[in-house]
Amino acid sequence: MTYCVGLLVNDGLVMLADTRTNAGLDNISTFRKLHIFEKPKSKVMAIATAGNLAFTQAVISCLREGVDVGGELQTLLDQPNMFRAAQFIGEVIRTVYKMDGPALEQVGASLEVSMLFGGQMPGQPPRLFMIYRAGNFIEASVDTPYFQIGEHKYGKPILDRAVRYSTGIYDGLKLALISMDSTMRSNLGVGLPLDTVVLRKDQMEWDLDRRIDAADPYFHDLSERWSAALRQAHLNIPSPPYKQKKE
Amino acid sequence: MTYCVGLLVNDGLVMLADTRTNAGLDNISTFRKLHIFEKPKSKVMAIATAGNLAFTQAVISCLREGVDVGGELQTLLDQPNMFRAAQFIGEVIRTVYKMDGPALEQVGASLEVSMLFGGQMPGQPPRLFMIYRAGNFIEASVDTPYFQIGEHKYGKPILDRAVRYSTGIYDGLKLALISMDSTMRSNLGVGLPLDTVVLRKDQMEWDLDRRIDAADPYFHDLSERWSAALRQAHLNIPSPPYKQKKE
Repeated sequence: MTYCVGLLVNDGLVMLADTRTNAGLDNISTFRKLHIFEKPKSKVMAIATAGNLAFTQAVISCLREGVDVGGELQTLLDQPNMFRAAQFIGEVIRTVYKMDGPALEQVGASLEVSMLFGGQMPGQPPRLFMIYRAGNFIEASVDTPYFQIGEHKYGKPILDRAVRYSTGIYDGLKLALISMDSTMRSNLGVGLPLDTVVLRKDQMEWDLDRRIDAADPYFHDLSERWSAALRQAHLNIPSPPYKQKKE
Repeated sequence: MTYCVGLLVNDGLVMLADTRTNAGLDNISTFRKLHIFEKPKSKVMAIATAGNLAFTQAVISCLREGVDVGGELQTLLDQPNMFRAAQFIGEVIRTVYKMDGPALEQVGASLEVSMLFGGQMPGQPPRLFMIYRAGNFIEASVDTPYFQIGEHKYGKPILDRAVRYSTGIYDGLKLALISMDSTMRSNLGVGLPLDTVVLRKDQMEWDLDRRIDAADPYFHDLSERWSAALRQAHLNIPSPPYKQKKE
């Protein structure tokens, strides 16, 4: 499993991904799923991936090393804007699918693949996309400023209740970490360490690019505080007054 | 969709079910999914159902009206103890599957069916089972005192954190209602009204058998308080201290 979340807020962009991969419960590994593409001061992008690891690694390699487009080798960093870059990722997903898809289907391997793609290029605000296996995609907006891929359900309630377009970027990171913590507690397929990037609008370089591991004191404290607050929250709610017997 | 939860705690049993059914988002109805079977002062049982409604209603009807067992018509209330009753439900699920399964498969209908079965019969403490489509089942224990069926993920974190075998029955009902509230916020396929029963150990009649609808002031208050507490909980956690630029 995997859990990745991306937030597009007024001040910028937050992306967070776990690193656990598994081929069955007895075969667990750590792989980076948050991939950074940047030209300092000019293009700042990141892709978070979920799904078949061989497939997503092939896509990331093609995006870095280039694919043939009309006789010319193009990389993700060659794309002129975020929309065109999202289309390019979709095209590469389709290309990899053409190469590997039929053989993967023959052995019954999962072909669920999805990606979050966020970043900023000159002349446009930060943008965030969710790209599907078919290579099509949707874009985050003021109404729906976050996307999740992978194991999204456990961590969705806190995002639904708390994330707004007006949320500050580091408050957004905090909420993403709470959402990740809830997911890790309920699904062993999602695990530490975490990778995160934060982009402040128009800064054109990462404000934060960090790995958070089990020894991270802030994340440990956040997890403890959230648990304690939830316990206190339900203790503060009175018991149901329904104690009458059935008539 | 459906969400049902059952808790087996030291003092007794709690079962809670929503009532929303749908055949697509444009075809939503209300059906009772929590079904009560009782002989006053002697046998107290309830079944919560998830999955294909025609299938689960057929099972409930067979359990009430009886099925032929070696030439004799037997009902759920004829069973001598909870374990035998759980086996009997499993047998009836298999019987209905033999009748309807192949035709349902032909039209591609979902055959996901699961049930929570709880209650008490003389001479044994309350017991709670989760019964699968194949008619096999597992039983709740001190280690894992709750079961969920249907859309279980949104409402699982609060149960994981808060429900223990030592939890009081009405605190258990409160936690089940919080879990239900989280689920309803994130999945439109789960909705009011709710049906709930509470059984106090050895009382041999329901301590509570109630429908909770949108006008219920306690549930409304619980939902508001839980939202406010979650908002406050994340506000009380400091922002990440990670504000250094990337080296």
